Amino acid sequence: MGTLAGRRLWTPITRWVAIALLLGASSRSEAGDAPRLAPPKSTPKVVSSGARSIPERLVEEALQSRGAVAVARELSDLVGARPTGSPAAERALVWAESRMRRAGLQQVRREAFDSQAWTAGGVALDVIAPAQHPLRATLMALSGSDQLVEGEVVRAGTLEELQALQGAMRGKVLLIDARLERTRYFDGFVPVARLHYRAVQGARLGGARAVLLRSAGTGNHRLAHMGNVEPSRGEPNIPVLSLAAEDADLLTRLSGVAPVRIRARIGRHQLRGHRDSNVVGELLGWEKPEEVVLLSAHWDSWADGTGAQDDAAGCGIVLDAARAWTALSLKPRRTLRIVLFGSEELNGAGAFAYATRYRESLPRHVAALEADSGAGAPIGYLLAGTGAAQTLLEGWVSPLASKAPATIVTTSLIGPDLVPLQLAGVPVLGVAQDLSDYFEWHHTAGDTFDKIDPAALSLAAGAWSALAWSATAANETLPPPIPPRF
Amino acid sequence: MGTLAGRRLWTPITRWVAIALLLGASSRSEAGDAPRLAPPKSTPKVVSSGARSIPERLVEEALQSRGAVAVARELSDLVGARPTGSPAAERALVWAESRMRRAGLQQVRREAFDSQAWTAGGVALDVIAPAQHPLRATLMALSGSDQLVEGEVVRAGTLEELQALQGAMRGKVLLIDARLERTRYFDGFVPVARLHYRAVQGARLGGARAVLLRSAGTGNHRLAHMGNVEPSRGEPNIPVLSLAAEDADLLTRLSGVAPVRIRARIGRHQLRGHRDSNVVGELLGWEKPEEVVLLSAHWDSWADGTGAQDDAAGCGIVLDAARAWTALSLKPRRTLRIVLFGSEELNGAGAFAYATRYRESLPRHVAALEADSGAGAPIGYLLAGTGAAQTLLEGWVSPLASKAPATIVTTSLIGPDLVPLQLAGVPVLGVAQDLSDYFEWHHTAGDTFDKIDPAALSLAAGAWSALAWSATAANETLPPPIPPRF
Repeated sequence: MGTLAGRRLWTPITRWVAIALLLGASSRSEAGDAPRLAPPKSTPKVVSSGARSIPERLVEEALQSRGAVAVARELSDLVGARPTGSPAAERALVWAESRMRRAGLQQVRREAFDSQAWTAGGVALDVIAPAQHPLRATLMALSGSDQLVEGEVVRAGTLEELQALQGAMRGKVLLIDARLERTRYFDGFVPVARLHYRAVQGARLGGARAVLLRSAGTGNHRLAHMGNVEPSRGEPNIPVLSLAAEDADLLTRLSGVAPVRIRARIGRHQLRGHRDSNVVGELLGWEKPEEVVLLSAHWDSWADGTGAQDDAAGCGIVLDAARAWTALSLKPRRTLRIVLFGSEELNGAGAFAYATRYRESLPRHVAALEADSGAGAPIGYLLAGTGAAQTLLEGWVSPLASKAPATIVTTSLIGPDLVPLQLAGVPVLGVAQDLSDYFEWHHTAGDTFDKIDPAALSLAAGAWSALAWSATAANETLPPPIPPRF
Repeated sequence: MGTLAGRRLWTPITRWVAIALLLGASSRSEAGDAPRLAPPKSTPKVVSSGARSIPERLVEEALQSRGAVAVARELSDLVGARPTGSPAAERALVWAESRMRRAGLQQVRREAFDSQAWTAGGVALDVIAPAQHPLRATLMALSGSDQLVEGEVVRAGTLEELQALQGAMRGKVLLIDARLERTRYFDGFVPVARLHYRAVQGARLGGARAVLLRSAGTGNHRLAHMGNVEPSRGEPNIPVLSLAAEDADLLTRLSGVAPVRIRARIGRHQLRGHRDSNVVGELLGWEKPEEVVLLSAHWDSWADGTGAQDDAAGCGIVLDAARAWTALSLKPRRTLRIVLFGSEELNGAGAFAYATRYRESLPRHVAALEADSGAGAPIGYLLAGTGAAQTLLEGWVSPLASKAPATIVTTSLIGPDLVPLQLAGVPVLGVAQDLSDYFEWHHTAGDTFDKIDPAALSLAAGAWSALAWSATAANETLPPPIPPRF
């Protein structure tokens, strides 16, 4: 599939929807198709060395070194918050190149692309009737403009309530006060992300003045949850504000007493002509160097927090995999390409740039992985495929069943940055990590290093490292993926 | 004891120390003297009506009406944050008078006093070496001035480490990174508050430029914990900043890597000549109107959060007690005086004003209670006394043992606003409420109504109402209290 088609499909799809793509996994399980606990159907096809298989040795190396934790700590503590276009983003790029070389990667390079750097200029949001309170909120990236908004609040907490509001949004401020349930997979997040996406689109088309979203997180800690909501061409770019859970709950309670009015003073700043970069490095395959297993994460983060779980943890996972392979003198059969994407938080611009740049060689990408699910322990594997793909994956992961559950979950999205590759037919897969705590801090000021459990992250890193190794070493390669579902 | 003496004792004692007074309870339990689970030694001496005692009926009324929850919600949601000197503080006073009249109280009045209204003008705190991060911090009330502070950080996490730093603080910034443990009583909070108090005093006298405190809360939610730290006369008023737990932890981690430097830009604004008010109302005693049982809470709060647990919950408890007595047509034998103190958060200025104004009648205050421990369920009773006092209290609370544990804990502090009365010999007692969740939100932006468990608060309100009733109705009155321990 051409990149342009992918672009066209993608452009109106915001970060919210990138995640809402995970509908694939959730709607199936809603329909009673639970994650499959499939017993292994084939013997492992991985290269074996001595008594223990290489995947086993890689897990042990990750557990003993805790190297992923050290890398995540560096990026989180020493580089810090690194939104696209910030001074810290440049520090992150320097750090990424240096860290790739230290991990033993070759041909380390920056690959530049155009991005939409954006900074919030501050939001002052107040409820002005029937009581007066300053609220805690953040402007969702790529929405709104410098402006003053005042209006009466209408609320909805479900898709049904949202539909019932159709035609009643003109001139109003739409509040979506749905709560996010804590779950181990994405099935708590997905329905809320879906509702948010539809609400924002409905509010734009329905003439609302602004949208207020109860933060898409499980926390009640007075922190707002960041995200981006770029409008499709022609849609009015109304401001979308994410409120701390407490403040959304206050509006819900007040709306039960009397009509609620809010006033928001919004500042934002769009940087023009910003060039961002992915950072790329390789371990060349000894037998099939032209065949690529892509193992990725993203180096950018939001401005609040230090992007520890999103995605310093993922950077730690993939950089430590390269280090471990080098340290154990393991030379892959196919090429391992590590990519740390930029601008993942701004509609995945780095991922599209990668797919464009490597368009010719995408057919030789035999597998693509992205670690962008935090620092939780492995609870299974994610696969955009069934049938032969599942049988192959079962063979790869079964040797590790004593350390990481061999549960395989079929989903239409593995990682936001993999979508352009998946659209182009590259097989995508990954490790499912426990998300129970992830949405407590994801995209908030609380996403800091202290939230990372070193033992859980180390085990996850070992599982990713082993999975990537199996993909480079296998005799068979995965069939094309199921497409992302929108 | 004269008020002046009390004043002199109190002035250098900040809000921190007001709480550190709780040392009484904790140091005893540290010494192995656990809370006493004493069996009742005497029959209840309360007025009985029908099959159920009045205390039992009051608990049932509180549970059925949930009136305390409604009041707490009004103050938290409709009045909002109400720091001394703010526009919302005036709204709180109007609300309190109106609410007292609705509860059936007589002689409702404001009683004015001088206070030190203060507003933070914003803090910009950055770590500038060995990494660069904005940190989340708040200036502790009554400390510092408009200024820029830069310096190298020295840290201590225990009293021993603090003592080891003596002489090494000059020109440095002292970081106290002790963690607060979650407990049901005050025994987690007290050692940290004690360490903070000693650290601030030591830093002032030792020539430190500033103090950074890891927030005195159990939360890790990137919220700073507010407080006040007024210096004693002659001590340099260096700024004291409370850092979000994550940011203190970051400094701790960085200090293990390289010398850490911070820079703080501090704004503050002191209002001159501010007059604050307590709000007072009464239910006159039918037999001994000149004898007073004081049941109190405080209406002020910090600027962040909406002061839901501290102390809208307490206001709900005491106002609903008055409402319930009136609703049940219960006329107390002695006078019930409800006081909602002002400026509790600014060194308890309202409490000292009350003790001064009522100096002549303090000998006729037979008991004083203050509900300032949040919205947790009752887990026992607090008494600044032993022996005969304990025997008497056991008789009052034993009829409720099926609803609220009759555990009696001896402590030298019941409530911060009771200290001037206690110094003057007024017996003080109260309901012990479960504090397990309290320090998660206490004095932070997260102290909002959603954190209140209606069932727990209603049960606590019933226990307070019943306890106050027993104090008005008892034949015997409590002996003088043990003094507050400093």
